[in-house]
Amino acid sequence: MNQQEKTRISQLGEFGLIDHLTKDIKLFNASTVKGVGDDAAILDYKDRQVLVTTDMLMEGVHFDLTYMPLKHLGYKSAMVNISDIYAMNGTPRQMTVSVALSKRFCVEDMEEFYEGLELACQRHGVDIVGGDTTSSLTGLAISITCIGECEKGKAVLRNGAGQNDLICVSGNLGAAYMGLQLLEREKSIFNSTGNNDGQAFNPDFAGKEYLLERQLKPEARGDIIRELREAGIQPTSMMDISDGLSSELIHLCKQSGTGCSVYQERIPIDYQTAVMAEELNMDVYTCALNGGEDYELLFTVPLTDHDKVIQLKDVKLIGHMTRPELGRHLVLQSGQEIELKAQGWQSNL
Amino acid sequence: MNQQEKTRISQLGEFGLIDHLTKDIKLFNASTVKGVGDDAAILDYKDRQVLVTTDMLMEGVHFDLTYMPLKHLGYKSAMVNISDIYAMNGTPRQMTVSVALSKRFCVEDMEEFYEGLELACQRHGVDIVGGDTTSSLTGLAISITCIGECEKGKAVLRNGAGQNDLICVSGNLGAAYMGLQLLEREKSIFNSTGNNDGQAFNPDFAGKEYLLERQLKPEARGDIIRELREAGIQPTSMMDISDGLSSELIHLCKQSGTGCSVYQERIPIDYQTAVMAEELNMDVYTCALNGGEDYELLFTVPLTDHDKVIQLKDVKLIGHMTRPELGRHLVLQSGQEIELKAQGWQSNL
Repeated sequence: MNQQEKTRISQLGEFGLIDHLTKDIKLFNASTVKGVGDDAAILDYKDRQVLVTTDMLMEGVHFDLTYMPLKHLGYKSAMVNISDIYAMNGTPRQMTVSVALSKRFCVEDMEEFYEGLELACQRHGVDIVGGDTTSSLTGLAISITCIGECEKGKAVLRNGAGQNDLICVSGNLGAAYMGLQLLEREKSIFNSTGNNDGQAFNPDFAGKEYLLERQLKPEARGDIIRELREAGIQPTSMMDISDGLSSELIHLCKQSGTGCSVYQERIPIDYQTAVMAEELNMDVYTCALNGGEDYELLFTVPLTDHDKVIQLKDVKLIGHMTRPELGRHLVLQSGQEIELKAQGWQSNL
Repeated sequence: MNQQEKTRISQLGEFGLIDHLTKDIKLFNASTVKGVGDDAAILDYKDRQVLVTTDMLMEGVHFDLTYMPLKHLGYKSAMVNISDIYAMNGTPRQMTVSVALSKRFCVEDMEEFYEGLELACQRHGVDIVGGDTTSSLTGLAISITCIGECEKGKAVLRNGAGQNDLICVSGNLGAAYMGLQLLEREKSIFNSTGNNDGQAFNPDFAGKEYLLERQLKPEARGDIIRELREAGIQPTSMMDISDGLSSELIHLCKQSGTGCSVYQERIPIDYQTAVMAEELNMDVYTCALNGGEDYELLFTVPLTDHDKVIQLKDVKLIGHMTRPELGRHLVLQSGQEIELKAQGWQSNL
């Protein structure tokens, strides 16, 4: 938060604040008939199906404003919901945004938050069509609902994987988690040096920008969804990786009634992630399997799509589904198989 | 909250809690293709338009658990969103429910909350199709998004009132506000007698049940929407009364570009509301104009619908729209005109 003159939210009032934040919102979609400003938004999807997803983010549980600028928080809050619509093989179209604020937030803070939100929405062609702005006794609470569309019968659920399907993942894994570790380390140094009398938290992260970006400004993989469509591939199951690869693989297997074998050496890891893991004395594969918030796509395709899927940019084949009685395994380079466990993401509480 | 054995939420975990709360949910609507359990819900509205509304409720700001049982809170949280869909002349169909909980809540508390939520949804034929359950550092935060449908071109906005339209209101006003005053009074007596060592807050409200019900268990007026349809009346503007009649009238006038004259003697007030106002030495019309949370419908119809609208059960004609330059007035029994002001609802902070 900057040091400029601050406007108290009470100077605008609840309705004034909503008007102020939403007055410049541009609408991109023909399906948005009526946006902000009435009891409800009106959407028209014609013969397409409607996708709805929602997420709640609480200060101190899901984000830490010490190192998370409000603009990034807005961006990320929008992005995690947009990612869920892509993970259904849909196209995100609209969003409602509810925010509850304690007295320590001012109008300029909310402007920053909305700037990030709108940037994410513009990138993905999403209209902000409604929401709620209210007060909270302590901290900041955010709830976002994203609405999208999908051709009838084309939505991809978690339960459609076949027993021989190939398992694919986009991008690379573990970087967002490493970014979080880095931020937490610098925060604890900052706090322990007692250097916090008015000085902003502003450490030097040179050479680690990618990790920070992955944590603070994740990107939903709409590009992968488009690539899949263009290649004529309809995944059999799909989800986005928010809680860690292990946990998400277990979801797909349970819901599809399959087992799986995933090869450790095939898990995509960025160079900076590996360097940081070594610096922190952590096993990089553990980070990639259990660190969360990468918002990459995990999906399965039939064996017959093998030749198509290996052509895709930024998609990696990491293993295959199996009969359920074979269990869910990570195959190490040594050939040893270990059972996948859902350690999940340890929230930064 | 009851005294029975309590189950800590950590015993189930986040996914376990969601499964536990949603496993018995029944789906009513053909438009719900896929509910809880994937990255997003899938809905199919065919050629109808989609309505989306959202609300956030924070403990200590919007509700006080001292006198608001969790079952009622669930019921009311659902109802206020359902009411917004009716206020668009729509039919509510689906809902997503996000809840953030501090450690003082247990699984049984959430069961109670969901019981109320499901009861409200059943009454109005709404499917719970998704949501989020997460932790908060302090208190309870609730965010609900309700989705509904509407025949193309039949949605009623706030901006369609004509300059001679009749202004109508359903039910009666001020009772929910009186219910709140009553609860606040009993709470302060309860607290000041120091009678709170383990004893539950359980005062005698005999003869005032209606006021409590209006505050703790409001009903969205789907019945009025059906009546209007059956009578062949398409309102020109409409909204639900959540912040008080004055404030909502000003919204309709501003958005429709009209003035209005509303007659004090025509404002519908229940007998119990009047008695309670006298007991508290408050002006009952001030309560009816500025008290909120009645969730009645305020709407306008063309003059030509006069004969139809006066036939409607539980709908009262309270005035008419005017040219904008005539201003927005309340006409007293004496004939004196006073300007309507948006005092709005004073939240119980």
